Amino acid sequence: MISLNSHPSGRHFLQIPGPSPVPDRILRAIDNATIDHRGPEFAALGKAVISGMQQIFRTSGNVVIYPSSGTGAWEAALVNTMSPGDLVLMVETGQFATLWKKMADKLGVRVEFIAGDWRHGVDPMAVEARLAQDKGHEIRAVCVVHNETSTGSTSRIHEVRKAIDRAGHPALLMVDTVSGLGCADYRHDEWGVDVSVSGSQKGLMMPPGLSFNAVSAKALAAAAQARLPRSYWDWAEMVAINPSGYFPYTPSTNMLYGLVEAIAMLLEEGLENVFARHQRHAEATRRAIRAWELEILCLEPAEYSPVLTAVVMPDGHNADRFRKVVLENFNMSLGQGLGKLSGRVFRIGHLGDFNDLTLCGTLSGVEMGLGLAGVPHSKGGVQAAMAYLAETAAPAVVKAG
Amino acid sequence: MISLNSHPSGRHFLQIPGPSPVPDRILRAIDNATIDHRGPEFAALGKAVISGMQQIFRTSGNVVIYPSSGTGAWEAALVNTMSPGDLVLMVETGQFATLWKKMADKLGVRVEFIAGDWRHGVDPMAVEARLAQDKGHEIRAVCVVHNETSTGSTSRIHEVRKAIDRAGHPALLMVDTVSGLGCADYRHDEWGVDVSVSGSQKGLMMPPGLSFNAVSAKALAAAAQARLPRSYWDWAEMVAINPSGYFPYTPSTNMLYGLVEAIAMLLEEGLENVFARHQRHAEATRRAIRAWELEILCLEPAEYSPVLTAVVMPDGHNADRFRKVVLENFNMSLGQGLGKLSGRVFRIGHLGDFNDLTLCGTLSGVEMGLGLAGVPHSKGGVQAAMAYLAETAAPAVVKAG
Amino acid sequence: MISLNSHPSGRHFLQIPGPSPVPDRILRAIDNATIDHRGPEFAALGKAVISGMQQIFRTSGNVVIYPSSGTGAWEAALVNTMSPGDLVLMVETGQFATLWKKMADKLGVRVEFIAGDWRHGVDPMAVEARLAQDKGHEIRAVCVVHNETSTGSTSRIHEVRKAIDRAGHPALLMVDTVSGLGCADYRHDEWGVDVSVSGSQKGLMMPPGLSFNAVSAKALAAAAQARLPRSYWDWAEMVAINPSGYFPYTPSTNMLYGLVEAIAMLLEEGLENVFARHQRHAEATRRAIRAWELEILCLEPAEYSPVLTAVVMPDGHNADRFRKVVLENFNMSLGQGLGKLSGRVFRIGHLGDFNDLTLCGTLSGVEMGLGLAGVPHSKGGVQAAMAYLAETAAPAVVKAG
Amino acid sequence: MISLNSHPSGRHFLQIPGPSPVPDRILRAIDNATIDHRGPEFAALGKAVISGMQQIFRTSGNVVIYPSSGTGAWEAALVNTMSPGDLVLMVETGQFATLWKKMADKLGVRVEFIAGDWRHGVDPMAVEARLAQDKGHEIRAVCVVHNETSTGSTSRIHEVRKAIDRAGHPALLMVDTVSGLGCADYRHDEWGVDVSVSGSQKGLMMPPGLSFNAVSAKALAAAAQARLPRSYWDWAEMVAINPSGYFPYTPSTNMLYGLVEAIAMLLEEGLENVFARHQRHAEATRRAIRAWELEILCLEPAEYSPVLTAVVMPDGHNADRFRKVVLENFNMSLGQGLGKLSGRVFRIGHLGDFNDLTLCGTLSGVEMGLGLAGVPHSKGGVQAAMAYLAETAAPAVVKAG
Repeated sequence: MISLNSHPSGRHFLQIPGPSPVPDRILRAIDNATIDHRGPEFAALGKAVISGMQQIFRTSGNVVIYPSSGTGAWEAALVNTMSPGDLVLMVETGQFATLWKKMADKLGVRVEFIAGDWRHGVDPMAVEARLAQDKGHEIRAVCVVHNETSTGSTSRIHEVRKAIDRAGHPALLMVDTVSGLGCADYRHDEWGVDVSVSGSQKGLMMPPGLSFNAVSAKALAAAAQARLPRSYWDWAEMVAINPSGYFPYTPSTNMLYGLVEAIAMLLEEGLENVFARHQRHAEATRRAIRAWELEILCLEPAEYSPVLTAVVMPDGHNADRFRKVVLENFNMSLGQGLGKLSGRVFRIGHLGDFNDLTLCGTLSGVEMGLGLAGVPHSKGGVQAAMAYLAETAAPAVVKAG
Repeated sequence: MISLNSHPSGRHFLQIPGPSPVPDRILRAIDNATIDHRGPEFAALGKAVISGMQQIFRTSGNVVIYPSSGTGAWEAALVNTMSPGDLVLMVETGQFATLWKKMADKLGVRVEFIAGDWRHGVDPMAVEARLAQDKGHEIRAVCVVHNETSTGSTSRIHEVRKAIDRAGHPALLMVDTVSGLGCADYRHDEWGVDVSVSGSQKGLMMPPGLSFNAVSAKALAAAAQARLPRSYWDWAEMVAINPSGYFPYTPSTNMLYGLVEAIAMLLEEGLENVFARHQRHAEATRRAIRAWELEILCLEPAEYSPVLTAVVMPDGHNADRFRKVVLENFNMSLGQGLGKLSGRVFRIGHLGDFNDLTLCGTLSGVEMGLGLAGVPHSKGGVQAAMAYLAETAAPAVVKAG
Repeated sequence: MISLNSHPSGRHFLQIPGPSPVPDRILRAIDNATIDHRGPEFAALGKAVISGMQQIFRTSGNVVIYPSSGTGAWEAALVNTMSPGDLVLMVETGQFATLWKKMADKLGVRVEFIAGDWRHGVDPMAVEARLAQDKGHEIRAVCVVHNETSTGSTSRIHEVRKAIDRAGHPALLMVDTVSGLGCADYRHDEWGVDVSVSGSQKGLMMPPGLSFNAVSAKALAAAAQARLPRSYWDWAEMVAINPSGYFPYTPSTNMLYGLVEAIAMLLEEGLENVFARHQRHAEATRRAIRAWELEILCLEPAEYSPVLTAVVMPDGHNADRFRKVVLENFNMSLGQGLGKLSGRVFRIGHLGDFNDLTLCGTLSGVEMGLGLAGVPHSKGGVQAAMAYLAETAAPAVVKAG
Repeated sequence: MISLNSHPSGRHFLQIPGPSPVPDRILRAIDNATIDHRGPEFAALGKAVISGMQQIFRTSGNVVIYPSSGTGAWEAALVNTMSPGDLVLMVETGQFATLWKKMADKLGVRVEFIAGDWRHGVDPMAVEARLAQDKGHEIRAVCVVHNETSTGSTSRIHEVRKAIDRAGHPALLMVDTVSGLGCADYRHDEWGVDVSVSGSQKGLMMPPGLSFNAVSAKALAAAAQARLPRSYWDWAEMVAINPSGYFPYTPSTNMLYGLVEAIAMLLEEGLENVFARHQRHAEATRRAIRAWELEILCLEPAEYSPVLTAVVMPDGHNADRFRKVVLENFNMSLGQGLGKLSGRVFRIGHLGDFNDLTLCGTLSGVEMGLGLAGVPHSKGGVQAAMAYLAETAAPAVVKAG
């Protein structure tokens, strides 16, 4: 029998950019007894998670919750809005943009893929230029990734929206914010997003297994015309029954218990505070990286991710070997390089239920691991991060009795 | 904030035919810390659940595990094996057969639907007769439900297989055993099933959120030709990566922790013992129903479900009103009549992590509820069930110190 | 390694008169992370449990919480109020009264023990008579058991108080309500109790491990004079530091988390409702016993316990053999006969987090067990209980969405 | 209602010298359903914890387990072995030695207290000298603290034993290893200890609420003569019934579930590895302190505690103000100065379920806190600790699939 507790003493540092560590409060909610998903008690739960997720997405429109991984919500966005052979515009920001593109290929959607170097977010000008050429409005949607988990670059979604508008183009704007939501500022309605795609295991601090589509009225209208076959992912049945608090098929009840807590935790802290916390930890991480004289993969400071930071390995050093040294010596998981970055970068997750001392522990593990793995670097990364954290510290009000 | 604990004193009796009550051992496993699904520790977990599910399905072939509800596994079975416009033969055993048929319609698969009265399982002779007519082998698959959760009738899958063989027809046999697996005898390989569809929240005693396809070599070969668009559900990527213990996209890690325990519990008890336990509780339930002089929906004793029993309400009495009386007075959820049976039957779930005294409590709630709701009946149902349980009791060996 | 889950399928019926089944809500609270018992966050917890327990004891005086079993709270009551050789008056209501008496012996307190037949509560008249004789007021305390867990008889504490007052005697009134509190009406202040002794694992629905003394001003004054050696149990340090929310030595932090929930659950239901629920289940149990034509141990209806019912075995039949049959066949634990009742009675616990259907399951297990064990009885006990439960049912308001 | 989750984002760093952070594996065990403590299943549990604790104490003699805090086990050691007015020799190693001395005073045991400076362990020569003077063997026991939690000094118990032997004195050796057991090498039998006192919330990684006495045959014999009143703490009844796996009064069942896991975790890691891990983390901590140019309270390197390190605040700086800064800014609890050290030292706990990166996080919090609180210090403590940790790292074997 497999042991779930095979790690050595102490708590594992799960510093991959998702799944992020799940707080006890959420785990304890998940392990409540399963209830009848057709009973009166469930309706309150269903309504709570849907209205809560509207607050997290910052939308007054529909939020559809799937029992699936985030990958499923990608599929949902496409099959609900597209017909076979439809054309979408995607931008190669990294591995996840590439995987979404491949999914579209498999589903029979044609993709025009604006090439990228995996070190930047989406260039809104490039989107605008391409749309401006599309006089016949053949492009049905612009699909971009908000926070590219493979590279640590974010895209300026609001500016992509403006680019579409400037081009006077009717394409839908569909955004993967799987790893952005709940970590980085995101505004479905204000930014004019038509379909937002997300998952439970990043900023929402949940285990994987739930995914989301936030859907604009325009996207819903498009769905009424779209002819890709769909059933499990079909928005129509969801949107019809959700207002009653129920779902068309058996929902993932226990995960929804956790989601209630996740939403509550984010709203108790305040979304603005959550975003500022992530930015601060990301800046501290970058200061450590610079002190080590290593290279941050993302080349555009305005696009630095608050969620994770990808670090380029010096030539001749393999990132996966380094990660193995860190895991075996310091019981910490770091993110691997994905796709064409395999072996060339490692990624530090600094998202979710996280704090200053866990970051210091994380960076200490990286710094010690660099030494043990023989990767050329300067000392002092943790010191630099501490200096920044101390200088920007803001005491919490600790509840007294 | 929603309370997850709004029920009055004592433990809720969740006697719907799934989700079934989740034992503590499984809930406690689920709430372990999420691990890196790309790390070395995960591989052991992935291998354990896949090989364990092979034992539960009784197959040496591939078992694909999805982060989704059982409904998703229906879709997976269809999109992996069918091309647009393909024809399948389905049998109207009840609401779930009907829903699977509707799903096929939505996905662009043509369905020939053998009509049924919702009070019997599949008639193998009818299947054979229809296949015999299909000289051109246009029918690509026979899709049937093993345990019809809406009616409490099981289908004799092994005889359906023989019917197909007698007809000398190459159609795939695809079986929904969402509520059968882990409760009623099921043998994927021995019975010649090509695709078995199941979910976590019935006999596996898990919360909803995982689903399964057991896939024969013949079905895999069919998938290579099938042209329905698919990505999330695609067997090919799963089957390629699963032997390493990993999944192509983020799996539902914490649910897999629970699945390890669920499999262990079933194997510790022994599948034959599990099936016998369900049969015994079903028989006790039927004795109670007969003592009440109420009617069992399923008309064919050989097809009585060991998982649940549907009870026909006397004319002029609404089953949902009765269920409400039971819920409000006795803190027990019973299953509602589905589809065309709405209001006309109620369903007693006697599956999963269940025992004699919980059954007696369940039947007591029904008997008292019948009285309170003014439903004509004779007393003595619980008494009759107890007589049977006592006469068939077999003492467990209780571990001494 | 020992398995904590060795029982067969389904939930164990823990129908001993304590520990009672611990609801999930409390177990989940207990398994939160341990905090610094000297930190500011703890103070709120400490204050919450103390003020909550005042509500449960119905006192505005001090409640002292010990990390110990209920047995420890017995000792605390004695060592805080007595000096070596002091005399107390106790009443032999059953095994727990006897054990408390033996403890007093061991601690060097002299006990005058009014004999009893283990089938009644305390006779207030006998207490009054004895005190009236004690012209010199040598007796320092009257120590009685509120709910005698070994016999299922309660004592009328309020009348004992009146008896003491009528005798004009200054003795303290010390009451063991270990199994009464949270099940049966109890009023520390109104009834003029000086020291109430209780534990966590009965009406409070907690695991064992916490115990309580509610202490009157008169008892505190007596403690200032009492000379039995004491340190761990010393009220003085507790009472001095508790108002700040802290404890003089390390408290059982995680158990206190559970206690917060236990108190909340009792107050949410309402103490009067809790008491009425216990009375109703006790009456249903007695109706079953009478239908079986078995004998209830307690001979005085006014003293029937709402917490448990002890049943006398017919001559020639051993209660422990019967209990073994029930445990092995029906996965239910019943209480054994204690002390001189060993083998002669079994005890049915119907306390704590309990409801109608669990009671029906419990009584079914007894009825079937009587048959399997060959104990002469009439059928129909469950039927009789159901009749009463149905006739007294009051629908809960089930929260709709 | 009090929130148990009031801390800001991320996991609290509980770096007090106990309670230490409780690993999930233990918390999950504790929240299993409570069982009948008189039933056959319990016996296996009772035997497992007793034999397991023998391995932890390294004794083949009796281990008595109390439902109480560690303070209770102090009392148990005294009341079982002493008669009123008996004389014991104690040594003032710090606050806990002082509290044990005060307890003895309260219990009517006379104490001769060898003065100490709170910066050293017990001086075996001083013990020998005093015993040598005690020609009449009036001293009944030598009572010392193995790991003085208030100062971070350990005592060389084996040498104290030799000192007693050299003096040819029959006194019992009673040792408080509340915070030593499971962290620092400890050998009840080999070192000739008569009574070892411990608790659950330190090296055993449990919540507080269980305590222990390991008892030699000589101590048991002494108990037979000792006349201090005792009941709850009485060894005799425990020792009589424990071999059957049961306890004389209701044990703390759920805490025993946790203890099974705690013992298993320690034995799986290997006690020698556990001790070496603690020593390594203590040395890393001291290197940080030296780099900060702060003073370690313990003056004798051979007596440095592997469990915690107490740090002397520079003159004019209050340790509690510093601790408050750390708590409010970095969500970490440090230990306060106790007794005469109040405000003058803070204590860093590095015990229990702990690892390198958590230590780095801990030291980072101290270093940043020193800066924020304006405490004069040099930078570089974390850097120094990391250098040591990296140089002494030993990769774990991480289980592959």
